Amino acid sequence: MDMNPSGTPIRTDRPTATDGFGFTVLQEHGLARLGMLLTAHGNVPTPAFVAVGTQATVKSVTPEAAKAAGVELLFANTYHLYLRPGAEVVAAHGGLHRFMNFSGPILTDSGGFQVFSLGASIEHGVGKVASIFPDEQQPSVRARREDNGAPAQGFVRVSEEGVEFRSHIDGSRHLFTPELSIAVQRSLGADIVLAFDECTSPLHDQAYTAASMERTHRWAGRSLAAFEGSAEQHGYPQALYGIVQGGAFRALRERSAGIIGAMPFGGIAVGGNLGASHEQMHAVLDWTVPLLPVDKPRHLLGIGDVAGILAAVERGIDTFDCVMPTRNARAGTVLLRRGELTATGRGGPGRSGVNAGFRLNLLNAGYSDDLLPVDPSCDCYTCANYSRAYLRHLFKAGEQLAQQLATIHNLRFMARLMADIRQAIDEGSLGELKASILS
Amino acid sequence: MDMNPSGTPIRTDRPTATDGFGFTVLQEHGLARLGMLLTAHGNVPTPAFVAVGTQATVKSVTPEAAKAAGVELLFANTYHLYLRPGAEVVAAHGGLHRFMNFSGPILTDSGGFQVFSLGASIEHGVGKVASIFPDEQQPSVRARREDNGAPAQGFVRVSEEGVEFRSHIDGSRHLFTPELSIAVQRSLGADIVLAFDECTSPLHDQAYTAASMERTHRWAGRSLAAFEGSAEQHGYPQALYGIVQGGAFRALRERSAGIIGAMPFGGIAVGGNLGASHEQMHAVLDWTVPLLPVDKPRHLLGIGDVAGILAAVERGIDTFDCVMPTRNARAGTVLLRRGELTATGRGGPGRSGVNAGFRLNLLNAGYSDDLLPVDPSCDCYTCANYSRAYLRHLFKAGEQLAQQLATIHNLRFMARLMADIRQAIDEGSLGELKASILS
Repeated sequence: MDMNPSGTPIRTDRPTATDGFGFTVLQEHGLARLGMLLTAHGNVPTPAFVAVGTQATVKSVTPEAAKAAGVELLFANTYHLYLRPGAEVVAAHGGLHRFMNFSGPILTDSGGFQVFSLGASIEHGVGKVASIFPDEQQPSVRARREDNGAPAQGFVRVSEEGVEFRSHIDGSRHLFTPELSIAVQRSLGADIVLAFDECTSPLHDQAYTAASMERTHRWAGRSLAAFEGSAEQHGYPQALYGIVQGGAFRALRERSAGIIGAMPFGGIAVGGNLGASHEQMHAVLDWTVPLLPVDKPRHLLGIGDVAGILAAVERGIDTFDCVMPTRNARAGTVLLRRGELTATGRGGPGRSGVNAGFRLNLLNAGYSDDLLPVDPSCDCYTCANYSRAYLRHLFKAGEQLAQQLATIHNLRFMARLMADIRQAIDEGSLGELKASILS
Repeated sequence: MDMNPSGTPIRTDRPTATDGFGFTVLQEHGLARLGMLLTAHGNVPTPAFVAVGTQATVKSVTPEAAKAAGVELLFANTYHLYLRPGAEVVAAHGGLHRFMNFSGPILTDSGGFQVFSLGASIEHGVGKVASIFPDEQQPSVRARREDNGAPAQGFVRVSEEGVEFRSHIDGSRHLFTPELSIAVQRSLGADIVLAFDECTSPLHDQAYTAASMERTHRWAGRSLAAFEGSAEQHGYPQALYGIVQGGAFRALRERSAGIIGAMPFGGIAVGGNLGASHEQMHAVLDWTVPLLPVDKPRHLLGIGDVAGILAAVERGIDTFDCVMPTRNARAGTVLLRRGELTATGRGGPGRSGVNAGFRLNLLNAGYSDDLLPVDPSCDCYTCANYSRAYLRHLFKAGEQLAQQLATIHNLRFMARLMADIRQAIDEGSLGELKASILS
């Protein structure tokens, strides 16, 4: 082993998991880390983007198509799968991997966020980062809400025991507790299980946010106890991540990072309200991440725009999930580097919202006879075989293949972005990459 | 060359097209023929099922997925592609094959049927075989109407010149003539082009059907002249098929078969109203097919149910198109042989409608925890990787992957059915196959 300038040992071999789950930092560049996440379902180089497959499918594509586009990690949802088809159905298949035919590592959200997004956030009319994302591009709350496919009931009752809510499917009442969430995630067989938490909204004041956070910390202890007191059910080990809360309040974030960081979790997720601007999100990460243990993987919940990922990687985040790339694709919006837009765009890049400057709307009339692929420099299946004019035709004609092909491209865009980020960390050139991408 | 019992020369080698289009009968068994359709985009063993890709996509699947399921021939639509995206856009790509990324042979419908199905058939409230198919399973008219995605305008004016109609997309007026249809199909670059025809409804009386048929015959002459007076535009030869009309009237069918059969078409399609029962369809074929030239391929328009295909193959039909297998799939109905249903079905087979006894509705609650694949004896991607419970979950959750996976299975079902039929013709056991499938 060599030592890098910051004094951290460098491992240049690709490690293998011996106990089913682990994480190794291979290289550091400032706070950014090049790492390897080790799971029973394979090892994943980090920083990595986690594709969202809420209902045990990455919307509109087969797992093989997602993998071919570079997807190595999936994020499925405990709340949705508990309600439908039921954890027992997934468990009877031997867990999520066999149920949905994805052999790579899978994370499951604990259900806390969905209870929030179907309840309080809709009552407040905002998401956790509503002010940064004033339009439909707001990446997490609205996006996940859309995934539910039904209007929210607006009924959520939080108590020390857990959260009582109504199903968005049939209105039936359910009580989610840390113990139930862990039991369901054990049944689902996720490689990475998330502790049960409450996700507060930007409209919650500091007092409520603090009280909620303290309860989330107690739930973290109950989640850990439930996890350690139960066994994996499908023949491979699982890991449990804790979730740091505290809203956009420095004192709360620091307290939460300290408490959650000190508990024996396999990894740490940063969740909740990340503030009302990119700058506030940066501040939240600046307060939080340095207090987290260096040897555990760090996941940032619900962020997946290009600028946000670059900023979070610089601040030491290892993995990200967001519905935006896939949801944008289904709406006809494909992602490109700015240079590609300048060189080849005819309809012009999207000018506002998340990923402004990285988006091309295939519904624009300017693409109706455009023979170029979405991105001539892209190596994805879609760009290799189809023109913008064909994709626009499919979107205008209401054909499902449109969404499938656009999703494949956007997943590939994210995979290539993350590969470039990893290479830049390795080469010590993250600043140059960021400048070239964002300028 | 050997001679078979009926005295027809048998060619056992797989022939190749020397002039871009041809057809060879390899084996006969009664009136049934084992053949090879030769095109510039590859040779296809017949009898063969033609998958429908109305808007230059087989709905919900990639061309690679369709090919992997056994699709060798596609049927796209002149009417739809003329209106959107416009033939000039397809032509600018080098034709349909490159536009939609399908390298195999493509047929295009002439537009006549769609003008009918968006106009007269809706005014009459019936399709060409409405009485056989009293429910939503009526295979051709209703199914294609659904493909249009918009309510019909009900405005169709037929004259000697052609058919004036309103676009189902924007209400704009258009005049389709034989000359325009051929010009558009030349631009689209279909391997097999259909002559422009009028498709009459079961509610048209004999006098109207006769007058319409005579006009269709004159349009056949104009289609031929336009075809022969124009050149292929994309570097490979195309062939033109004539269409036999005449409704369910014996004298008309015999006259149309004689006239169309004597014209120098590359192949013959049997279209229009095929009667009010399976028996009447059999009669129409019994009157028509023996009068057609033996050396030309014969296509039956809009029929694709199992019993109908078996009956038509027995009567000398070589190729079939129908939206039913793919449309059924999108509604959650997957196709199985009856034996498979008996052996493994839990929800029970569909009891009425087209393909009664060959259908399994994945939405049935009985499949909610069914770990079996759709068909344990099937070798398709869907059956190799997913359970009925997973597919049901996807359908209930409104996930597109449901329709994609079900479509793949149903296309494979059709491909395997046709392969079994070809083998049975080769072995002289078509009657036994039919008995085993339908009993």
